[in-house]
Amino acid sequence: MLTILKIGGKVLDSPSLLRAVLRDFSQVPGAKILVHGGGKTATQIADRLGIAAPLIAGRRVTSPEMMEVAMMVYGGLMNKQMVCELQALGIQALGLTGADLNVIQAVKRPVGEIDYGLAGDIVGVNAEILLGLLEQGILPVLAPLTHDGKGTMLNTNADTIASTVARAMAAHRPVHLVYSFEKAGVLLDAEDEDSLIRELRPADFARYQAEQRIVGGMIPKLSNAFDALEAGVERVYICHASALANWGKPEFVGTVIRR
Amino acid sequence: MLTILKIGGKVLDSPSLLRAVLRDFSQVPGAKILVHGGGKTATQIADRLGIAAPLIAGRRVTSPEMMEVAMMVYGGLMNKQMVCELQALGIQALGLTGADLNVIQAVKRPVGEIDYGLAGDIVGVNAEILLGLLEQGILPVLAPLTHDGKGTMLNTNADTIASTVARAMAAHRPVHLVYSFEKAGVLLDAEDEDSLIRELRPADFARYQAEQRIVGGMIPKLSNAFDALEAGVERVYICHASALANWGKPEFVGTVIRR
Repeated sequence: MLTILKIGGKVLDSPSLLRAVLRDFSQVPGAKILVHGGGKTATQIADRLGIAAPLIAGRRVTSPEMMEVAMMVYGGLMNKQMVCELQALGIQALGLTGADLNVIQAVKRPVGEIDYGLAGDIVGVNAEILLGLLEQGILPVLAPLTHDGKGTMLNTNADTIASTVARAMAAHRPVHLVYSFEKAGVLLDAEDEDSLIRELRPADFARYQAEQRIVGGMIPKLSNAFDALEAGVERVYICHASALANWGKPEFVGTVIRR
Repeated sequence: MLTILKIGGKVLDSPSLLRAVLRDFSQVPGAKILVHGGGKTATQIADRLGIAAPLIAGRRVTSPEMMEVAMMVYGGLMNKQMVCELQALGIQALGLTGADLNVIQAVKRPVGEIDYGLAGDIVGVNAEILLGLLEQGILPVLAPLTHDGKGTMLNTNADTIASTVARAMAAHRPVHLVYSFEKAGVLLDAEDEDSLIRELRPADFARYQAEQRIVGGMIPKLSNAFDALEAGVERVYICHASALANWGKPEFVGTVIRR
């Protein structure tokens, strides 16, 4: 089993919680890939550098200056801190952007109504390279950065990287994809952890959406999850980062998404 | 032949010169490792973030804040830009810090008269891992960052990384070590490129030092070079970054250091 964990949200802003998650993840048996998002640090560093994060029609746009911040914060600070802490746990971690070993190729998002700047839409995942690393006992740590093969780095959403890599790897290995963040899982009421949906199947998702009980940012996350299942990923989990401490045990709390 | 190129100094501050150097290096036949320094960007970013680069008794000290800047600029911005440009040249580049794949282990420099902060003294180079990468046709791009194996990243001089890696690899492969920067090579008069020393052997170095004709920052660089030769590195070159365009040709200009 290959377990692909995406860490995002507020977990990345708490060094002690992040350390605990890395420790729990290091205990998960089998081959593993870690994908991390950005957290607040990139925005904070941009603020301190006097770089405005441009919004066009309410959508975040990656200017050249913001791209440099993304490379610094995602590719440098966060990625290397995680690699370093995983190494201290005895894990042979290797930090990667899409440019390293050419693992994730992308194109600059085509300009339609909005020019998203240096946002990258993934066009290819080099599954053979990742498989080769896993066979050598290496744990790839993927930053949310891709490249266009022509010398330009691009900014790509970490959820999308996790889902796209999971789909590419599912052709070769059984894959579990885990989205961890600061909520217990998919909640029918965002303010009430007791409203957790323990198990979700495509028909449930369609119904909850029709009833407008699943809304907002959870919809693209779940669409990513169902896309991954259709492409052969065995299960997708959405859970609190601390739930990894109970991975594989009956005490595990989170949403399991199955076909 | 394994060619280890260190790029440093002002070359890193000029995107067009850096691009030319990467293109020339990509044409050098055989296995290759690239080591890069920091250039001015780290100091500039630290300035813009309002972080003072502390100096104690005239020596630069790595505070925790400066270490974060080093991780961002060396491990993120510069390393990833180089990897991305090498990939565009068709080179299977992989950016690494010492923590990635545990390639370079260090200890925090012991506190004597000065506490250098998060400065790392190298205690081990994982030559087997680097050899394995080279055998897969991969070009490692090493940032001047190491780790202590306990979860802490450390700042290590790029010249020292290049020399230490060259020595470790020389036990397995014939190695040429190239220090490139913005001067033509070792000059007897820093202001006069015509005073270039074309060839330097240990006895010459001792004599030039005694005559005080080689002084300042060139002495540790040359000491590193002679240490590398003693440890089995075949030749050390010190040259202008643009001299790589004539690598292996009679037109090549630079200082060759031999036993």
